[in-house]
Amino acid sequence: MNLPLSPDRLWDSLMAMARIGATPEGGCNRPALSAMDAEARALLAQWGREIGLTLSVDRLGNMALRREGRDPRRRPVLVGSHLDTQPSGGKFDGPYGVLAGLEILRALHEAGAETEAPIVLVNWTSEEGCRFSPSMIGAAGAMGVLDEATVLAAPAMDDGERYGEALARTGWAGTADPAALREAAAYFEAHIEQGPVLEAEGYDLGIVTGGFATERALVTVTGETSHAGTTPMEMRRDALLAAVEMISAGERILYERAPEGRMTVCRLLVDPGADGVVPGGARFAFEYRHPDDTTLRALLDAADAAIAAIAARRRVGVRREPYWSFPRVVFEESLAARLRAAAARHGAKHRDMLSGAGHDAYHAAARMPAVMLFIPCHGGISHHPTESISRAWAEIGLRVLADAVIETANAPE
Amino acid sequence: MNLPLSPDRLWDSLMAMARIGATPEGGCNRPALSAMDAEARALLAQWGREIGLTLSVDRLGNMALRREGRDPRRRPVLVGSHLDTQPSGGKFDGPYGVLAGLEILRALHEAGAETEAPIVLVNWTSEEGCRFSPSMIGAAGAMGVLDEATVLAAPAMDDGERYGEALARTGWAGTADPAALREAAAYFEAHIEQGPVLEAEGYDLGIVTGGFATERALVTVTGETSHAGTTPMEMRRDALLAAVEMISAGERILYERAPEGRMTVCRLLVDPGADGVVPGGARFAFEYRHPDDTTLRALLDAADAAIAAIAARRRVGVRREPYWSFPRVVFEESLAARLRAAAARHGAKHRDMLSGAGHDAYHAAARMPAVMLFIPCHGGISHHPTESISRAWAEIGLRVLADAVIETANAPE
Repeated sequence: MNLPLSPDRLWDSLMAMARIGATPEGGCNRPALSAMDAEARALLAQWGREIGLTLSVDRLGNMALRREGRDPRRRPVLVGSHLDTQPSGGKFDGPYGVLAGLEILRALHEAGAETEAPIVLVNWTSEEGCRFSPSMIGAAGAMGVLDEATVLAAPAMDDGERYGEALARTGWAGTADPAALREAAAYFEAHIEQGPVLEAEGYDLGIVTGGFATERALVTVTGETSHAGTTPMEMRRDALLAAVEMISAGERILYERAPEGRMTVCRLLVDPGADGVVPGGARFAFEYRHPDDTTLRALLDAADAAIAAIAARRRVGVRREPYWSFPRVVFEESLAARLRAAAARHGAKHRDMLSGAGHDAYHAAARMPAVMLFIPCHGGISHHPTESISRAWAEIGLRVLADAVIETANAPE
Repeated sequence: MNLPLSPDRLWDSLMAMARIGATPEGGCNRPALSAMDAEARALLAQWGREIGLTLSVDRLGNMALRREGRDPRRRPVLVGSHLDTQPSGGKFDGPYGVLAGLEILRALHEAGAETEAPIVLVNWTSEEGCRFSPSMIGAAGAMGVLDEATVLAAPAMDDGERYGEALARTGWAGTADPAALREAAAYFEAHIEQGPVLEAEGYDLGIVTGGFATERALVTVTGETSHAGTTPMEMRRDALLAAVEMISAGERILYERAPEGRMTVCRLLVDPGADGVVPGGARFAFEYRHPDDTTLRALLDAADAAIAAIAARRRVGVRREPYWSFPRVVFEESLAARLRAAAARHGAKHRDMLSGAGHDAYHAAARMPAVMLFIPCHGGISHHPTESISRAWAEIGLRVLADAVIETANAPE
């Protein structure tokens, strides 16, 4: 189909959306279910009305904008992402996937073209998780990974407002059954990579075949507070020096066994953290990510052994508690093949890759064939006002996504 | 002189003092120039009046309780310490030295004994430094290490109240010239060790011949925030992993070159410290202590070189800023010799040692012959409610201190 896709219209829509919650630094501050998010939703709804889409909002606030297909018995093809941003977010993380989906529907509308199956544009609620935990909570609720009541009761980290209260306050508590979104033939999500690989290696697109498994743990080291001046080194039980050695061991284990994985210590707290006092406690949040569940488990086992040995030698107590994990996600190969073929047709330099970050597509994948398409972003920067993409990347992503979505909507189910 | 020293009276006074600011955990919360500190001062003043001591309070709140000598031209011998405690302090850090000095004067009074030189019992203001920085600020002001106006203007860390305002509020702003305390023949300070060495090695007393040199620095590491899922390890500039390696290097350098020294990282902050984000910044406060200034300098130079190499290899920026230092202090050998001789006379097992902690005596030593005497404390624990000493240690310290103070007050100047 020779669709009248307009990369300029997509770009203008991205810029118009970015004005909602725009920050002086050039980014966006549009947390889920803020007044800004409500305004962004209203704009999307208005754009949908302009091309005859039917809006349905479910009880978790997920927006579904539907364009009917020729065959009323066919399940829809979903395409979407999220409009919410981190407080220090940029213009593209989320909105690119939603507005690329919108542009496909606008072009279909303009062409008066019909697809066999309906196409539904989805804006999931609260992907970023900056007020309501966990991330991707709206998609998790719709796909049944979390139950509806749990999602509605989730308290905001800042002031404790419930997810359900925030929906009501912003006027975005709908009446549709969130489970209805499970009845779909496929889910497509285009997104910026949020990493530096595609740009650094000169690729235009990443065909995302799955996601890293992640395990996050909190390690609590208990030593003994003592006087930093009067306590000889050999009599100390310094929790921080022990924690530091454990972290180094965790990094070394990754490099030795699985350098393709990731190891990050995101947080570290020292107790009491006072000048002149040998730390009696240290606590750090530590995560491994790896494409393969078995390797991830082996990394954790090796880290556990190293941590225990260090604790014993340094005479400190240690406790490791997992507090967040995400199993490996595998996307649908037949959908990835459609993206690959489209990329080849359009002359886009592309590679298969795994996503290191979590995405709404992970939850969709639990219920239907799903796939993601990454476009590069400059310097791999995201969740930052300087997050940026080129117009060329935005365009090639749009063209390849459109081909694959429409092909899927027209293919026999 | 066979002085009627009363170890029981000393103990009772320690317990009475400990009731002021007593905490449920068994310690004392009596920060400098708090209402509790004012009450402690009033109790000391009353005890002084009961034995005819003349109280003079200087403009920095330092209390001097004077017992005249036979020779009005002789400069006084000072003996003292501090009554303020850390918020989570114990009963002995500070009060032991003040009340051991008081017991000497009580015994002299009871015996109707005269010394050649006057003896002045000193309670220095704000040794602990928990509200007013730096520690030992009252002694620093009196000895001219800091000027009077600077001390009076020092703001409390919690609410910004000025040192001078706190003196006025508590009624302890005196009129005496703080510099008058410089005109003394000697300064003695007994103190708990605040470290584990004496008890672990089975000593009754430590003759403190000097203090460690200390240098504290703030190291700021600047990397780049990135996404913990999507950024391959080799493309990261993780400030925390760099900081962790620097800290390990600092510890290794100490063990390799000067294991008798001390290395402590008291504080460490991670920026942004958020799950899923590779830290772009890390900042840690790092100190070396060593008895010898030259070795301390060599340790710092080696650490600087290691830190720079790590920063270069990990492609992060680094800045090391010294923010507190204390040169090596050498106490007066002739006074130490008197303590040693007295310890031998009383059958106290004693050793020479250096103080790792700072003390009011450090500032006194800048102006007059000074020395310190340590008694053990259980487990080396101080600045903690469980800080404790045995009655035997309290007694032997008192007897040895009394001998040396009185001998000094009677010796030809």
